Amino acid sequence: VTRRRGIARLGEFELIDRLIKPLSKGFPGALGLTDDAALVRLPEGCELVVAADAMVAGVHFLPDDPPGLIAGKLLRVNLSDLAAMGADGLGYLVTFARPASLDDAWLAAFWQGMAEDQARFGVHLLGGDTVSTTGPTSLSLTILGTVPLGTALRRGGARPGDEIWVSGTLGDAALGLRILRGLAATEDQALALIDRYRTPRPRLALGRALRGIANAAIDVSDGLVADLGHILGTSQVGARLEAKRLPISAVARSVPDALTAALTGGDDYELLFTAPPSAAERIAALATAEVPLTRIGEITAEPGLVVVDPDGRPRSPAARGGWQHF
Amino acid sequence: VTRRRGIARLGEFELIDRLIKPLSKGFPGALGLTDDAALVRLPEGCELVVAADAMVAGVHFLPDDPPGLIAGKLLRVNLSDLAAMGADGLGYLVTFARPASLDDAWLAAFWQGMAEDQARFGVHLLGGDTVSTTGPTSLSLTILGTVPLGTALRRGGARPGDEIWVSGTLGDAALGLRILRGLAATEDQALALIDRYRTPRPRLALGRALRGIANAAIDVSDGLVADLGHILGTSQVGARLEAKRLPISAVARSVPDALTAALTGGDDYELLFTAPPSAAERIAALATAEVPLTRIGEITAEPGLVVVDPDGRPRSPAARGGWQHF
Repeated sequence: VTRRRGIARLGEFELIDRLIKPLSKGFPGALGLTDDAALVRLPEGCELVVAADAMVAGVHFLPDDPPGLIAGKLLRVNLSDLAAMGADGLGYLVTFARPASLDDAWLAAFWQGMAEDQARFGVHLLGGDTVSTTGPTSLSLTILGTVPLGTALRRGGARPGDEIWVSGTLGDAALGLRILRGLAATEDQALALIDRYRTPRPRLALGRALRGIANAAIDVSDGLVADLGHILGTSQVGARLEAKRLPISAVARSVPDALTAALTGGDDYELLFTAPPSAAERIAALATAEVPLTRIGEITAEPGLVVVDPDGRPRSPAARGGWQHF
Repeated sequence: VTRRRGIARLGEFELIDRLIKPLSKGFPGALGLTDDAALVRLPEGCELVVAADAMVAGVHFLPDDPPGLIAGKLLRVNLSDLAAMGADGLGYLVTFARPASLDDAWLAAFWQGMAEDQARFGVHLLGGDTVSTTGPTSLSLTILGTVPLGTALRRGGARPGDEIWVSGTLGDAALGLRILRGLAATEDQALALIDRYRTPRPRLALGRALRGIANAAIDVSDGLVADLGHILGTSQVGARLEAKRLPISAVARSVPDALTAALTGGDDYELLFTAPPSAAERIAALATAEVPLTRIGEITAEPGLVVVDPDGRPRSPAARGGWQHF
């Protein structure tokens, strides 16, 4: 490991004391991050909901993305998994593999962004580990949440006849990434779409409201076709999507290939869910100006996904692709 | 990313289906690793204990270490954190950043080792993420355990007059690492000490038995001086250690610098704990032939650590050093 000269570097313990430990304040069971583990009591009648996602520089974010937004995205993509389960956020752990080239200003901005977002979402840092690496910055976050016993939303409950709904708009984040990678765009297009790529909005309130209403739910991280594929595979059903019904923002429509981005682009972190037609009115009542809800198709008994093109022609896209999770 | 030619590579989904998903079997709340998160119910009257550790190739393990042992070490160092809290293991999540050069045989051996160790310790895989990286293999594991409410062992409870105890022997792992790095050794020395470096024995049964007995506990991962320093800092006390009492294995004694390794070498994953003299008999009764327990000093009211050399001379080592955790 070669250390770049001239970069002020906090010792690891100072780094932890100054930048990281403050994020555990307000959660007594975090023990001030001074113990081997954190202690977490669950609310009566609740079960724990737990997931983990990793992000690597150059793969999941661009090395020159603002560090505070990288921290926020790491937290938000994990909160989005809680939203897809209908869970409430509780706390999180972070492991951080740091290359020698990352300076203290970067780290300070990273943890500042994390602090702002944990306050926004009402969660606390419960533990983790900082290590050095000879490779790119490598981040991992484990999110803990709670849900009343037996009410978690699942991927496997979709039934033939269910309507398929999606929150917000689709494809914006993928177009934002394309702009970051060089696609020509106006300033308005760039601002709106890059923001969607960098700053997911986990739909926690919607997920919570869908307990007892949705039969199946997932967040759109891999892309609509891939994520609907996960619901179909787990539920052992098929689906028919109407491409012309997909919610595409006005700014996305002004960029080439918005429909493709809406079908296959990842990183939107909207909720995709199914529910019986009898629930349509209750679902429609959950829509807001900021988070519209749109019916985009229906679950079928025959396996496989059929996408009806805007011109009425049915297609069968490959269901697998996008980011790889387990 | 340049892919090496001639290496059979499973697709990521096949990898997950074949190697990873089987590790979730037997834990219904893992949902077969097919959902956005896992669901975990805690036993009545228990709280959750949660910690995370990261390991990077070339930093925390050697690239040619056997992959199954790397997996085992990743799990065991986290289980050791549970042991230090007096907790029982429940489950874990793994994030895995994979360089293109890691072939399927390596991955299969890694997950096979994980499967064997999770069976040995009675825990299950609950989730995680596999991603690609242009850097070295970068691993992170979050461990979940449980402890009866209010009985967790902590670092902050040491009191003046407490005796300081340690399990097993100290320094073996650090000497094993030195042998791997080129220190001359006989085959017997190499076998015994390298094994201690590669395969920690988390002292879960001991930690459990120390609930209600120990006033403070930690596992020796950073080295005795550093980890005792964590207890002293959190408990706001000092300590006096007798170097001649340190438990050093016969094989370690046959290698140069065994005492230094016992004082400052990391990776032993023994339990270091304090308890009032009145508990000495109950503690001695917990010792076994495989896991001896040794009194090595006492907690003092004056802050600071004094190590009494074998020749009777007191020294004050720097308390910070070793691996960096938070």
